[in-house]
Amino acid sequence: MMKVIILGADGYLGWALTLRLAKRGHEVIGVDNLYTRNAVKEVGSDSAFPLPDPEERVTAAKKYLDVNITFVKGDVKDTDFVFELIRKYKPDAVVHFAEQRSAPYSMIDVNHANYTLINNLTSTMNLIYAVKEIDPTIHILKMGTMGEFGTPNYDILETPYINVNINGKEDTIVFPRWAGSWYHWSKVYDTYNLLYANKLFGLTITDIHQGPVYGTRTEEIVHESLRTRFDFDEVWGTVVNRFCVEAVLGLPLTPYGKGGQKRGFISLEDSMQALTLLLEHPPKQGEYRQVNQIHEIYSVREIAEMVKDAAESLGLHVEIGNVPNPRFEKEEHYYNVETKILPSLGFKPKKNLREEVKGMIEDLLPYKNRLEKFKDVVWPKTDWRKGRRV
Amino acid sequence: MMKVIILGADGYLGWALTLRLAKRGHEVIGVDNLYTRNAVKEVGSDSAFPLPDPEERVTAAKKYLDVNITFVKGDVKDTDFVFELIRKYKPDAVVHFAEQRSAPYSMIDVNHANYTLINNLTSTMNLIYAVKEIDPTIHILKMGTMGEFGTPNYDILETPYINVNINGKEDTIVFPRWAGSWYHWSKVYDTYNLLYANKLFGLTITDIHQGPVYGTRTEEIVHESLRTRFDFDEVWGTVVNRFCVEAVLGLPLTPYGKGGQKRGFISLEDSMQALTLLLEHPPKQGEYRQVNQIHEIYSVREIAEMVKDAAESLGLHVEIGNVPNPRFEKEEHYYNVETKILPSLGFKPKKNLREEVKGMIEDLLPYKNRLEKFKDVVWPKTDWRKGRRV
Repeated sequence: MMKVIILGADGYLGWALTLRLAKRGHEVIGVDNLYTRNAVKEVGSDSAFPLPDPEERVTAAKKYLDVNITFVKGDVKDTDFVFELIRKYKPDAVVHFAEQRSAPYSMIDVNHANYTLINNLTSTMNLIYAVKEIDPTIHILKMGTMGEFGTPNYDILETPYINVNINGKEDTIVFPRWAGSWYHWSKVYDTYNLLYANKLFGLTITDIHQGPVYGTRTEEIVHESLRTRFDFDEVWGTVVNRFCVEAVLGLPLTPYGKGGQKRGFISLEDSMQALTLLLEHPPKQGEYRQVNQIHEIYSVREIAEMVKDAAESLGLHVEIGNVPNPRFEKEEHYYNVETKILPSLGFKPKKNLREEVKGMIEDLLPYKNRLEKFKDVVWPKTDWRKGRRV
Repeated sequence: MMKVIILGADGYLGWALTLRLAKRGHEVIGVDNLYTRNAVKEVGSDSAFPLPDPEERVTAAKKYLDVNITFVKGDVKDTDFVFELIRKYKPDAVVHFAEQRSAPYSMIDVNHANYTLINNLTSTMNLIYAVKEIDPTIHILKMGTMGEFGTPNYDILETPYINVNINGKEDTIVFPRWAGSWYHWSKVYDTYNLLYANKLFGLTITDIHQGPVYGTRTEEIVHESLRTRFDFDEVWGTVVNRFCVEAVLGLPLTPYGKGGQKRGFISLEDSMQALTLLLEHPPKQGEYRQVNQIHEIYSVREIAEMVKDAAESLGLHVEIGNVPNPRFEKEEHYYNVETKILPSLGFKPKKNLREEVKGMIEDLLPYKNRLEKFKDVVWPKTDWRKGRRV
């Protein structure tokens, strides 16, 4: 059994992983500054499911799953806090989710761009030095995004470095990246800082590049009080979750532009399976392991069609709208992603998107009245070039 | 004639460029928060030449060069300050030197790493948004470093993007980088943010990758009160300047490790010539121009030998010492740098390192007593892996 600190334990993935690891018998220390709860309200939105306080969550976890979770409120931007945390708990692994995770949020204006860069880079640097100075054998598992790579014409490989020929001469370079928002660039910079820390200090790192996650359910969410947060507005909601709420509210689904943007998706349940495998099978000491964590590749238009089908099978009437793309991205492109590492560890996806969206809509329907209040934050207001129009 | 704002106008390059542009008849607004003056004292050092206050500098420039310089004290990390500055002066160009520029400083500990990343990224982001929102035609000239590229086996080309083949498929990627300190990484991240701002907002940018600068003289430094700062300690001094002070103090010269590290050098005078050419010949609107600004490539051992020769020709006795390398870098490597853009604009170097170091030692000798006080900050104390030992 391991001792694991989860930074960002109050978030969508963070809380679900806290429950998963605790249920598997690991000792879990969950850390969060509750920033996302406020930042979501800043844009006029809220979680689709009402969120119990962290203390209530811990109590519910004890009641329904019989697990003991330690919750620590604190800010990972605070260097002393991070050093004390690592010194006090001496974990086997630290899962780093404690980042500003919204691309549109980072594009609102200069202040949100700066906040995203400072928050994300500082939190990762604090973790690098705390681990280096207190116990360099600790496994750092950092949540990155497939969005670091953009949509290149080459395959996105699971390797931190690659050999290339530049003007007739060969050398090894960092696997190339091209990000599509200040948020995505901040994740690229985190990656480079971790690659450098791996070379310089010999740290042991798993760098996960995950596609958009969807879903309302994991095996541990057996009662309403155990639900993880669920965002659906244009700033904080990822595409599948947003479309499901649009279907529930009778709003047209909102693929941006031509909707040909392809992404690699994974369900919340399968993300938990993958993260658990990566923690229970750490890389060798001093290794930098770069993993692509996706299951199925779809275009945004295909997602819209699957959500429409699922909603209609539940008797809802759904239209697919036509929204000018507020983002700066290719709407038609090649997309191929290598996914060998997780299957080699035994990963077997249990969910697929087509079936799962029906369950999501069923889970959201009882909250329709609550969701009505947030109807006007679903439509895109944050333009990559113009910022946020309020 | 142009109106130019120089961010970081109190620094080594900043003050020299302020004088050069003013003397050429341009309107110059110099901006600085005087941070470097304090940060140098923080490590127990000071400029080799005593520095007049900014107001005294402006007065001396009027007296000896008959130019009118506007100096504004302010911090480029302050978003409102940058917006007001651009709004008030509506410049044709902004020269961005306002960054923490020491690699060893960034490696002292976690706080110095964070400071470097936050300061450098925030200042550049503030400038990006101020220019984008107030006048996107303003030419941004950003000082970068050859150190962004590391020491690759391929030639370092003057192109922001390059075509490569990755596992059988072709695409265009950002010209690869591998930095050698948190400082150098911060410059890489500035570059990527500017590349993205160029694509997203159409900003007009000259991104200079400059090698280590050496020298005490420019055509405008005609009186002691016009001298630019000159750092020589292990944290703030670059290699040639540091070796010249070591020679004056009778200390052994301190190439690190084998001394086979090659770099591209440029004199202060020729750096001024290059920067002036780039400002007076801006890129096309919306263009991202990436320039390598170096003149001669030497290994650190060759530099030590040239400084030794120059010092001995002045009757000084000099030894070349043997210092364990505190940095994390290759000590023997390929190094070839494309330099086509500056010659195409008419750049003709006036100085070479072998001759210039003699004049530098002559300029420093009268300050020998002042320099004696700082004798113990020349030897390296900042180790890339262990931080700074005090």
